Amino acid sequence: MQNPSADRSETGPTVEELGESGLLARILARLSPAATATVGPGDDAAVLRPRGEVVVTSDTMVEGPDFRRAWHSGFELGWKLAATNLSDVAAMGARPIGLTVSIACPADLPVAYLERLAEGLDAACRTLAPGCGVVGGDLGRAPVLTAAVTALGDLGGRRPVLRSGAHAGDVVAYAGDLGLAGLGLSLLFDRAATTRGEAHGRTLGELWTEHPEALAAQLAPSPPIGLGIEAAKRGATAMMDVSDGLALDAARLGEASGVTIDLDPRRLEAAFGERDGERIPLDAMLSGGEDHGLLTVFPALVRLPAGFSAIGRVRPRSAPLLVGGRPHEPRGWDPYLVRWPGDG
Amino acid sequence: MQNPSADRSETGPTVEELGESGLLARILARLSPAATATVGPGDDAAVLRPRGEVVVTSDTMVEGPDFRRAWHSGFELGWKLAATNLSDVAAMGARPIGLTVSIACPADLPVAYLERLAEGLDAACRTLAPGCGVVGGDLGRAPVLTAAVTALGDLGGRRPVLRSGAHAGDVVAYAGDLGLAGLGLSLLFDRAATTRGEAHGRTLGELWTEHPEALAAQLAPSPPIGLGIEAAKRGATAMMDVSDGLALDAARLGEASGVTIDLDPRRLEAAFGERDGERIPLDAMLSGGEDHGLLTVFPALVRLPAGFSAIGRVRPRSAPLLVGGRPHEPRGWDPYLVRWPGDG
Repeated sequence: MQNPSADRSETGPTVEELGESGLLARILARLSPAATATVGPGDDAAVLRPRGEVVVTSDTMVEGPDFRRAWHSGFELGWKLAATNLSDVAAMGARPIGLTVSIACPADLPVAYLERLAEGLDAACRTLAPGCGVVGGDLGRAPVLTAAVTALGDLGGRRPVLRSGAHAGDVVAYAGDLGLAGLGLSLLFDRAATTRGEAHGRTLGELWTEHPEALAAQLAPSPPIGLGIEAAKRGATAMMDVSDGLALDAARLGEASGVTIDLDPRRLEAAFGERDGERIPLDAMLSGGEDHGLLTVFPALVRLPAGFSAIGRVRPRSAPLLVGGRPHEPRGWDPYLVRWPGDG
Repeated sequence: MQNPSADRSETGPTVEELGESGLLARILARLSPAATATVGPGDDAAVLRPRGEVVVTSDTMVEGPDFRRAWHSGFELGWKLAATNLSDVAAMGARPIGLTVSIACPADLPVAYLERLAEGLDAACRTLAPGCGVVGGDLGRAPVLTAAVTALGDLGGRRPVLRSGAHAGDVVAYAGDLGLAGLGLSLLFDRAATTRGEAHGRTLGELWTEHPEALAAQLAPSPPIGLGIEAAKRGATAMMDVSDGLALDAARLGEASGVTIDLDPRRLEAAFGERDGERIPLDAMLSGGEDHGLLTVFPALVRLPAGFSAIGRVRPRSAPLLVGGRPHEPRGWDPYLVRWPGDG
């Protein structure tokens, strides 16, 4: 994720000038085959050969509410699209085996942006989930760039690790970044947007130099995909991808399991309180959002796999969430209620 | 697909007024479980238990280029989203086992429209592909209503039927509607749009009364999903979903197989030349688009399964396409090149 501005100033043809088949050819040229795909892109559907049950998850990102092209290079956006969907597969304890990607965009979008996006999708798969790749998708038109991704995973004969399996007495652990992606978003709004909240790229180079980890966590995160299978093999009783903030997602896991998660602020601060050369406040860890780490619950006697830090305990059901033993009201994320800076 | 205007005038709360969790609850209440889903909506991913290889296909529909709310009730849009994706699964010879559906919409969209959409998705699955259902998805914001669907299918131990398996001498057959969806779209533009091409619903009731089959084929098609498996079992050598017009898709199948499809205009006219009480011209059959029937190739000695009509023969590779033995230039569909009436 270095030198992020290299692909930010696209020249060359637009989508409209190249047409669908030309665009498709350029995108397909950038995709590596998926290991379990017996039929890749080009037919009515792709064909995958999983060994066990199949997990499937979808997520759509829309320009404006979910990303801004002034901040996200095509490569970073493709990387983030793959990474966030792979993370949901990992959180079931499955191995990612394929992505489908539907892109809808304005006719005047530069083709180069989508070429970089394809490269980012491919690089994220190869880096975070080797053997996984883009197996299909479609292209269409929309007033703003819209990317819908579906990720498939193979449980390989294991049972899925659900949100609902935690028991009182279990240990709560976390793997991945915490609070860093939210810090990155704050930095972008503070220093790469107008006072009216419109994103611009003028100070991005500076920001990347000063805060490389926070920017990467926000624009092109690298969730610990492989640790999902590790946790499943080590007997994790419950697991989920943290995308709406640790506090809110821990409350959800507790509710699904009929227990209450008790997060330990001292352990959180010890493990995640300093990153990128600066202090991350507890509040940012609890409600930062877009962390895409693995909130995982293990039986008390299990030795945690490398990469996981203990951050709390599972208690009998009481409040929706405890922090340091005391009830904590998790702040919620609702895409329809949030007003973004720059909204009409 | 009768009484289509019943759900067209939505009242009640908007998406913004209800919020994500309330909306999600109302949508989930309208979905039937999928037979092979061991974990349905609500966790990081759904879990499916296929018996054989898995097929996966995605398609996105965006308000404006792909549909108009003045014409499509929520129920019809949901039905069409499911039907068109199920058709791609069928065209591989697979049984549909699950859909994921990502909806992004403006905050002021009436919740009732999405409730009807969920009912349409569910009804189409139950009617066209019993045992299949919506297993997951997500909700987000977009400037216009955007629905991204991924469909999964189970090959049940059979091999997929690809576009590339046709041999010279094989019989070309078709199952489904042909030209009818294109006729429906023409009728809508002629009689339910302003002179500037803006869609309105004022004459929809009339149109539905006069042309029920053409309107249904366009707004809520019923592709022959079950016939995909029938064709595979009967030894089909190649198969594809016809979505961009028979001529263009037949040329694609020919190219993928290294052969040339020769369509027989007399057989086409005999089998598909009259529907909905009126004559469908050959040109409409060849380039109507959105037919979502199964273009299927069988060995010459196979007796065609019920529902299929022979419409041509496979010849050694020559022109991209023959019609009545003579070269035919298929007209193409390109989402980035078409200018819709009403475009800016």
